[in-house]
Formats: sequence, structure tokens, C-alpha cells
Amino acid sequence: MKTDILIVGGSAAGLAGAITARRFYPELKITVVRREDKALVPCGIPYIFGTLGSVDKNVIPDKVLEKNNLDLLVDQVISINKAARIARTAGGESIKYEKMILATGSEPLAPPLEGVEFDNVFTARKDPKYLQKLAEALQKARNVVVIGGGFIGLEFADELSKLDYLDSVSLVEMLPHCLLLACDSEICVKVEREIENAGVSILSDRKAKAILGEGKAEFVEMENGQQLKADLVLLGIGVRPNVKLAGDSGLQVDQKMGIHVDDYMRTSAPHIFAAGDCTRKRCFLTGKASMVRLASIATMEGRVAAGNLFNCRRRAPCPIGVFGTVIGKLAVGSAGFTERAAEREGIEVVVGTASAMDKHPGTLPGAEELTVKLIFMKGSRELIGGQVYGSDKAGYVVNCIGGLIQQRMRADEICVFQMGTHPKLTPSPIAHQIENAAEMALAKDMKR
Amino acid sequence: MKTDILIVGGSAAGLAGAITARRFYPELKITVVRREDKALVPCGIPYIFGTLGSVDKNVIPDKVLEKNNLDLLVDQVISINKAARIARTAGGESIKYEKMILATGSEPLAPPLEGVEFDNVFTARKDPKYLQKLAEALQKARNVVVIGGGFIGLEFADELSKLDYLDSVSLVEMLPHCLLLACDSEICVKVEREIENAGVSILSDRKAKAILGEGKAEFVEMENGQQLKADLVLLGIGVRPNVKLAGDSGLQVDQKMGIHVDDYMRTSAPHIFAAGDCTRKRCFLTGKASMVRLASIATMEGRVAAGNLFNCRRRAPCPIGVFGTVIGKLAVGSAGFTERAAEREGIEVVVGTASAMDKHPGTLPGAEELTVKLIFMKGSRELIGGQVYGSDKAGYVVNCIGGLIQQRMRADEICVFQMGTHPKLTPSPIAHQIENAAEMALAKDMKR
Repeated sequence: MKTDILIVGGSAAGLAGAITARRFYPELKITVVRREDKALVPCGIPYIFGTLGSVDKNVIPDKVLEKNNLDLLVDQVISINKAARIARTAGGESIKYEKMILATGSEPLAPPLEGVEFDNVFTARKDPKYLQKLAEALQKARNVVVIGGGFIGLEFADELSKLDYLDSVSLVEMLPHCLLLACDSEICVKVEREIENAGVSILSDRKAKAILGEGKAEFVEMENGQQLKADLVLLGIGVRPNVKLAGDSGLQVDQKMGIHVDDYMRTSAPHIFAAGDCTRKRCFLTGKASMVRLASIATMEGRVAAGNLFNCRRRAPCPIGVFGTVIGKLAVGSAGFTERAAEREGIEVVVGTASAMDKHPGTLPGAEELTVKLIFMKGSRELIGGQVYGSDKAGYVVNCIGGLIQQRMRADEICVFQMGTHPKLTPSPIAHQIENAAEMALAKDMKR
Repeated sequence: MKTDILIVGGSAAGLAGAITARRFYPELKITVVRREDKALVPCGIPYIFGTLGSVDKNVIPDKVLEKNNLDLLVDQVISINKAARIARTAGGESIKYEKMILATGSEPLAPPLEGVEFDNVFTARKDPKYLQKLAEALQKARNVVVIGGGFIGLEFADELSKLDYLDSVSLVEMLPHCLLLACDSEICVKVEREIENAGVSILSDRKAKAILGEGKAEFVEMENGQQLKADLVLLGIGVRPNVKLAGDSGLQVDQKMGIHVDDYMRTSAPHIFAAGDCTRKRCFLTGKASMVRLASIATMEGRVAAGNLFNCRRRAPCPIGVFGTVIGKLAVGSAGFTERAAEREGIEVVVGTASAMDKHPGTLPGAEELTVKLIFMKGSRELIGGQVYGSDKAGYVVNCIGGLIQQRMRADEICVFQMGTHPKLTPSPIAHQIENAAEMALAKDMKR
């Protein structure tokens, strides 16, 4: 078969890239090749097992493909002949293409632990059949151990805490606190309290040593000798980029960091682009290689790649990493650097924090507190990070903060940034946290 | 008495200015002179009569003054001797000051209609005693007419619709639609439908001619001869800046547009600053005089003025006007120019609109639709306006849009702007409305 644009992968980067390509090139044939029968909402995976209740409810509807006149092939590209511009699939198809976007994503990492190969040890793999198996195994489990206390691990643990039939849910994190790569410890502690109140046991600052059992996981043995009962083990320790196809096809790749791309998202073969979890990324502040991988970054990269297919016109910014989650009833967001991360990079910071009710006056029904912490470089007072916690407005407040970081704004500029307010929708303009946190930091830095 | 910094007015601009001054000048004496015994949340006034239930619940607590070591004098400044730097009050105080911020606010406009002087004709005056009278009059009323279908009028009508004992609530708007200065007609129509469903009669594209009755309002007579029964009339047709004190003291003022200030918020007497509803403003796009007056703009100006008291270091941006409200269950937000306003300024625009559920997958409990409309200048593709409606995330989504306008971003930049997403907090990154609306507009403009 023949297509103008071939997109390998149908998750965040592939799909956003395909839709953008359609907008730019209404007349071209665009084909998405996807391994999975159904495309899952990647960030929705933990919610399959509690809030949503089934794998099917976490599907990206294929009608978005039809609506945008995108051809779908459920198959796997296994080789690329760059010179001839032909891709071959596991199903025996030979696809002649003009331009390609590789959006092969990432796979969950499995740690080098004894026992990870047991059938009742799972990861958050974006594969509906695999997750269906996990759902079934979970129904039979009574004691679950989650290894990894980042976003995914916490969200799994939080959802599992709602399953009344479970006897125990334990969460193992080797850093001093859960979520410590995204938030500073005073906020991590609030998240931990929330999840402990839901009945999850947190074992932080401790490492798992092995998964033990007779033909299946029965215990997780910790390095300190402690044994945790486990009918099911969930691993949430990170992902590695899928670079095999790119590497085998002679494109430049870094096994750990991803497919090499330039700022236009072009690989080492200029007619092949790559986007999403599979690409190598750089930190927005230091320029160093970055491990941050998010669906929102993937869609941004997909849109950049698609816009550049026949004419480079969009540059991809280095990812900042704008996160959000809800654990128990506490919403948390983070963008850019934490204080801890800045310290590790040798960056001196000045911090401002402000709290307010998310409606005003605070006597309005449903008003909840929301706290904003902003982190500026000392001296230049450039915003490099922000964290938010409290009410569910956190998801968009952190987006506003992410925007201020992207625009490289300084504390003095943020103090007088215009934010709209309304009693039922936001805090009072007098108490508005972003401007107030900036002013607190500024006042501190001026006193030095 | 003597003070270092004298702030005249204790609402949004005055209070934000006082708090900022305290942060900059921890050692100085700062005095706020306020006419009212209690300071009201200005935007909360309509909610006193429904959701909140009492004037007292809509008060800005004075503990914020104590917390920031700000002196309060409940009194009214009636004259300023600029040369001697002495202010005199109605209570007979003579206050020697070093620097001053005038934050005298605005008064609701009363239209030049026969009958506006009746005791049962009210405005949204920021005076607790006056509003208490309104609350009492409302308890005896059965038919209420609201004149003016902007934000304030709509919010009043929406709250009144919850009072079961009322026989009728009518809303009179002389423009073709309610809210038409803030939103384009397709969105105004949705707001009107919402408020009509709540039982309010809308009379748009029609003008009130007179308020008639024997010693009190009994009817509102329309220009077309129609008569509306009215035991109580509420006027919500706009405000005029309070410039009398400034004008009487020899400062340059424009009676209609406000106290003249430079970009540092200095009046024509450099040691006197002014901020908030009382100042003259310019449109962020055209530079023309602007009527936009919002508490959020007032606080921004207060922060600028306070930062500059002894050393100019902050410039006030021209206000963009970032609004939000909730009418019935529909949240609406608007920032910058509408299509209609752009047309009136002779600015050609290209528009993109995108809808998505505010959680993802859309099967998550509580997910609601949210639509974003972005308005770009043709050719330059600079963002000049945006409107949002649907879920209560609208308040912060419009703040993100307001930020993009402030940063004078173009459609191609917004397409690849990084927004964080999370299933429980935001739409899917693939469907995220801001980037998609920008892409739609861009694709349209490229096709020309």
C-alpha cells in the first residue's frame, strides 16, 4: 500500500500528530499504524481499576480517526527502508510513504529484581489485553504491593484503596518521600498523609530486594529483611523509550534517553520525524538530557512534527514538565523545578508561598483552600518552578504557572500579571496566590 | 496624626496596595482611610441576596489589616493640601503623609430616567448599610426589574431567580443580547437560555423609558410602551470613577474616564498615586481610552502603585479585561476582544473553536464539556481575545488565555504551548481546547 504520511503509533503523540497533519494537509493520505486493537488513554490506566471500573471505559474512541479522515492499520511496523521509503509490518504489509512520524512511545521499566518475571507482577503497560489480565488478577488478590511512589504508583495505590475486598495495599518508595521528583517534601508529606488515611501503608526510604514465592509472587522482601505479603505486585518505577525500530532502521538513538531529534523533531533521516515518549529530551533550564515524559509533552511534540513534515516552521520547546494529580481529595500540581532539584543543580532559589480559598468570599458553599509555591532563581528572579495543592482548581492553576515559566517571567512581572477573578470561580484578587507568592519571594530577595 | 503612607480607600486597589506597601516597607507607618465601617467583596454583592444570604457574609475580614500591621481609620478624606502633604477628613482629622495612594473606586451609574430617585430603585453600591436596605426591600418585593444585562445585572437576576417568593424577575438590556460587551452572540444566547430556564424574562434589544409610580417605583415603562410590574428596580448599567476628591485637590482628572495616571500609576502630583476603578485606563490593543473596570485590574494597579511609592520600578500593563461568571450552571469567561468588538475597531480576525470534556476519558464521573473560542488578528495571527464556556474550570482556562494575550502570543506559538493534563483535572492532551482552537484558526488563515 501507499500513503503520503505514515504515523507509527496511535497514542498521544501519534494521534495529535495525525490530527495536526490533517489540518495542514487536507488532501493527503494519512495512515496511522497502531499495534493495539484499541488505543488507551495513557494517564487513565490507574483509574481502570477503581473509578472507571473497566478497560473499555479508558479507550480513546476511534471516531476521532474517522472524523479527521485518518486511515487506521492495526499492525506493527518492524522495519524501515529509509532510502526506498518503505515500511514493512509484522502482518506482511509493505507501505510506501513520503513522510513518517515515529511515535513508538515507551515501555514501563521493570527493575532488575529477582521475581519480576512472575505472572502476578504487573506494570502499567498501555495494552488493553494485558490490563484486562491485571484487572482479573486483581479480583483474586487480597494483598497488593506497589513498588514506586511516583505519580503512577500513587494513583494505583489510591485507586486500590477503594477496593474494599483487599486486605492490604503497600507502597514502596526508595526516596525519602513519595512524589519527591515532582514536589518538595512539605507537599509530599501532605500527599502521603492523604493516602495513608485511605488505608495504604507507605514504606518510603526503603528498597525492595526481591519478589519471592513458589512459581508466583507471594512476598516482597525488603533490603532491611521485612517481608510484605503480595498476591499481586505492581511496578511503577518509570519508563524507557521504545527505540528498537528506530535503531534497527539506522536512525541515531540513545537506548536510555530516546531517538535523537532536532528542534523540528526530525530524526537523523530528515524525512522521518519522531515525537513523544520515544524521543530524547532536554531540560528547559539547564539544557541537559531530561527524563521527563508526559502525554502533554508527547502531543506537543506530535503537533510540532506534523507541522514540519513538508516545511519546517515549528520549533519544539524543551519540556518543562507540567504535572497534576489527585490523591484522595487532595489535588496536586507541579511545573518545572522543585527546590530540591534546583539545589541538586547548584541553583540558588528564593521561594514564595501563598494560600487562599478558591472562591471568594470564603463563606461561599464549596470553597476549598488552594496553596501556591513559586520558586525563583536568586538574583535574576526568573520563575523556574511552581507547586500547587488543595482544591481541584490545581490542574489549571499549575497550567497558568507553567505558562509563566515558559515565558521566562520574573517575579516583578508576575506580581502585576493580570488574572481574572470571580467569586464562584477563583480566589479574591487581593488574595490571589500567584501574584502574592511572587511578591513574597520578591520581598525576601530584596531584603538580602 | 502622621503617617508615612496614606491610602485612601479600602477596597480592592487600596487593600492590595496597602499589603504590597507593607511587603516593600516593613518599617513604615501605613494608614488606610476607609469610608465604610466594613469592606465588602465588591464582586460578591449579587450573591448577598441568594447564595450567601446576608451582607455580613460578604465582608473582607479586617484581620488582613492587622496581620499586615496596617492602621485603619474609618473616615472620609475630603481635601488634600498637596504642597503641605496634609489630608483632611470629614471626621476632622488632619493627616500629615509622605506618599499617598488614591483608591477611591467608582460609583454605580444611574441612567437619566424619570423615577431613578425612588427609594425602591437600587444599584450595587459598595456600602453595607445601603445593601442591607436593599436586602430588606427585597423581602417585601414580589416583582423585580433589573435594568442592564451585563455581568452584574445577570448575576443579580440569577440570584433573584432562586427566591421562590418572587412572582417575576425581568431583565432589560438595550443591546441585542445580554453580556454582548464581553461575549459574542452565540455565547450570549447560551447564557440567556440558562437564565430564562431559571424563570427570568429577558427583554433585550429594548430600552427602559421611565420608572413610574405613586411616590415609589411601581412600573418600568419601556420605549415600546410595554409596562413591567416592579416593586423593586435594580440598576446594573455600569460605573463612573470617583474623581471628586482628586479633582478638587487640583489633580488632573477626566470626569468620565478617571484620574490621569502615568504607567507608574502616578497622578499629576508625583507623590500621589492612584489605582483601581478611579483611574483612567487604556485598551491593551488600540491604546484608546478604555471603560473596563474590574477588581482584578484594581489589585494589579494597587500593587504597581505601592511598588513605586519611593522608587519607580513597576509599570502597569494596559488592562486586557479577564472576566468570569457563572449563570445558572453555565460558567463563562472572556478575555480581551470579542469578534464584535474587533469588527467595530476595523480589525480583521480569524477564529478557532474547540470543545472537549473537562476530564478524560469523558466517562469519568463529573466530567463536563468546556468550549474555548480564540480570536486572532488575521495575518499576524496574534491572539487578541478568547471566550470560554461550560464547566467551572472556565475561570482558570480564561486566565490561561488572558496570559497568552498578555504575552502577545501568536497562533503558531499557542499550538505548541505546553499545558499539563491529568484525567481528573483537565481534558485529554489530544483534545485540549486551547492548542486545538489555535490550530483550527491557523489552518483557516493558511488557506486564504
